[in-house]
Amino acid sequence: MQRPIITLTTDFGLEDHYAGTMKGVLLSSCADALLVDISHDVRKFNLYAGAYAIDQAAPYFPAGSVHLVVIDPGVGTERKPVLLHANKQFFVAPDNGVLSLIRARDPGATAREISNKDLWLPSVSHTFHGRDIFAPVAAAVAAGSAQPEDVGSILEDPVMLPGLEPHEIERNHWQGMVLSVDHFGNVITNFRAGKFRAALSTKFFLEAGSGRVTEARQTFGQAEPGLCFAYAGSSGYLEIGLNQGDAARELMIEPGVWVELRIAD
Amino acid sequence: MQRPIITLTTDFGLEDHYAGTMKGVLLSSCADALLVDISHDVRKFNLYAGAYAIDQAAPYFPAGSVHLVVIDPGVGTERKPVLLHANKQFFVAPDNGVLSLIRARDPGATAREISNKDLWLPSVSHTFHGRDIFAPVAAAVAAGSAQPEDVGSILEDPVMLPGLEPHEIERNHWQGMVLSVDHFGNVITNFRAGKFRAALSTKFFLEAGSGRVTEARQTFGQAEPGLCFAYAGSSGYLEIGLNQGDAARELMIEPGVWVELRIAD
Amino acid sequence: MQRPIITLTTDFGLEDHYAGTMKGVLLSSCADALLVDISHDVRKFNLYAGAYAIDQAAPYFPAGSVHLVVIDPGVGTERKPVLLHANKQFFVAPDNGVLSLIRARDPGATAREISNKDLWLPSVSHTFHGRDIFAPVAAAVAAGSAQPEDVGSILEDPVMLPGLEPHEIERNHWQGMVLSVDHFGNVITNFRAGKFRAALSTKFFLEAGSGRVTEARQTFGQAEPGLCFAYAGSSGYLEIGLNQGDAARELMIEPGVWVELRIAD
Repeated sequence: MQRPIITLTTDFGLEDHYAGTMKGVLLSSCADALLVDISHDVRKFNLYAGAYAIDQAAPYFPAGSVHLVVIDPGVGTERKPVLLHANKQFFVAPDNGVLSLIRARDPGATAREISNKDLWLPSVSHTFHGRDIFAPVAAAVAAGSAQPEDVGSILEDPVMLPGLEPHEIERNHWQGMVLSVDHFGNVITNFRAGKFRAALSTKFFLEAGSGRVTEARQTFGQAEPGLCFAYAGSSGYLEIGLNQGDAARELMIEPGVWVELRIAD
Repeated sequence: MQRPIITLTTDFGLEDHYAGTMKGVLLSSCADALLVDISHDVRKFNLYAGAYAIDQAAPYFPAGSVHLVVIDPGVGTERKPVLLHANKQFFVAPDNGVLSLIRARDPGATAREISNKDLWLPSVSHTFHGRDIFAPVAAAVAAGSAQPEDVGSILEDPVMLPGLEPHEIERNHWQGMVLSVDHFGNVITNFRAGKFRAALSTKFFLEAGSGRVTEARQTFGQAEPGLCFAYAGSSGYLEIGLNQGDAARELMIEPGVWVELRIAD
Repeated sequence: MQRPIITLTTDFGLEDHYAGTMKGVLLSSCADALLVDISHDVRKFNLYAGAYAIDQAAPYFPAGSVHLVVIDPGVGTERKPVLLHANKQFFVAPDNGVLSLIRARDPGATAREISNKDLWLPSVSHTFHGRDIFAPVAAAVAAGSAQPEDVGSILEDPVMLPGLEPHEIERNHWQGMVLSVDHFGNVITNFRAGKFRAALSTKFFLEAGSGRVTEARQTFGQAEPGLCFAYAGSSGYLEIGLNQGDAARELMIEPGVWVELRIAD
């Protein structure tokens, strides 16, 4: 039988014991789990960056994988913990929108509020639900010692982040946003390549931060030094890059800023 | 049979091959080990931060786990390598106090000097005992190919870090220290919540760095923007936080600084 | 039977999903793989630092291990993907010299161009071959579902990085380079200790960046505060260190700069 996979995506950083402590909890309840870090260095408190990271990684994991996603600025408040069953995988997270992109991809996704306290650690802190609630529940689901229906009842309206899809301001003029800026300074917009790739073959303007991008390339090696260019990224979105440079710094772009795309008739 | 767990806590950073190389050594001697990173980004040379990190994580791991802790400013000098058996787990580390908090929690803990060179790598460098001494010994203990008594003889007085417990300067006036500052800028003091939590319900002054904290909250979401507040942290200690901000930066606090707590009569 | 080991060495950083996504691909094709991070924070686009990291770590892993090395500034261009069989291990990487040190250690190493697209993911992006080409090939080799000869035909002249070995400018006067600067600011040169260690016992000058080093020590604890000293490092190369300080910053040294070694007669 295949070993259960549990992935971890957090903004806990790497200096502290937090991710390691969660792994202790996971292994204590699911001894044969295979633990995989997606990232522990998601931009602090940034739900869009978290939503983007788990949505990019999850499709490459086998069915049945359990994904623990803890970007949780509201820890200890009334926000609910949630178990989402989507795309044949499980997601354990605070119900704050961090699973928006995952849920949007599966119309049949079902969410449950994690209300069964028997699955939590006996003592729950006010500030580290990753350890005390999310990890033990993820481990129980992965180990099969809890079925989804044991976790709690259906949550009808999980929180969805606003603005995840671009909208058309006027004909051929779209407003979108920057989902993420990566380690290399590449800018990932929310313009889906499936829908907007054709724009790159026409005359277009992509405006974000202090910059206007009007050139497209297929990959970095094709771009002249110093040129910020648009491309259909491995993310499935339009991205902005700079060959061996940092496009986000060059254009003064932060995650969350608006992006406008104008396409010539 | 359960797979042996070996955790790693170091200040080696993540840019280099060091942690990966140690894992190669571990897997070469204990092929079915489950390796778990606690952190490789403990503040450089900081024994208090290392002692704190492993003490926080270890209790969440199963009995029998082996914890490799290499914060080792004295590598290559006369400081001894040590195997500590405490709380039904094993700890392999330099004898420089980095296991102080672990040892303090178990009066029956036994320490052994790692003197059996048959367990080391054949060639030992002067600067990377994590690879050459600590990892192979941890792997041998985890694999069961070495028993604790094979490692070396009892070490009567392992090094303990000074100042780990607050002391009462005068009635209701305590001096403690900052054990760690986390990724979010939360300040972890050494005032144990079990003993000092009640102070948060009375009139109190918590002074550290440039700040005086007089308000307590249960969690971040309850705190007004800009307010540094005290809370009983998930660590089991009093902590100082700032909702979606960086308390340590705001109050100019570094790990190791003094903290004073005054409690009104 | 032993579980297959796959290690990962990249410059992808830790903020993003990239390493995690590759692990999903690896586990999808090789479910019982044991995944080990060497580093994901190799200096961006730096082939020397990448070549150094994997060459340091690989010898400590068991025979049969598969090492995935993705420092790939030329992704999407004509550079080839390569499978190298060397020292009884497998290496999957772009053919850009990042495996130079590995290959130099094994005269019998054989390289193959990864040309069999049946082993790639069905859809290959222009910018993330780590996910789309290198990971699935590494997984197939590790799982044994592909033999080396299935991957592609022999590559006669894999790219080798220039300058990896010091050369003698004049008698007892050598020019070498800085291979890497580590987390602690230690400077790793390419002067092999096996050949040059004896110089440290004589009168010598080691010049790099803004500094001239003339003292040798065995380890950090033996060095006076503020003294930059040379030592035979755990890397097998001469290194420059500063006890509890950052030698590279002190001497303004970056990876890739020249180092000159003069040895008195």
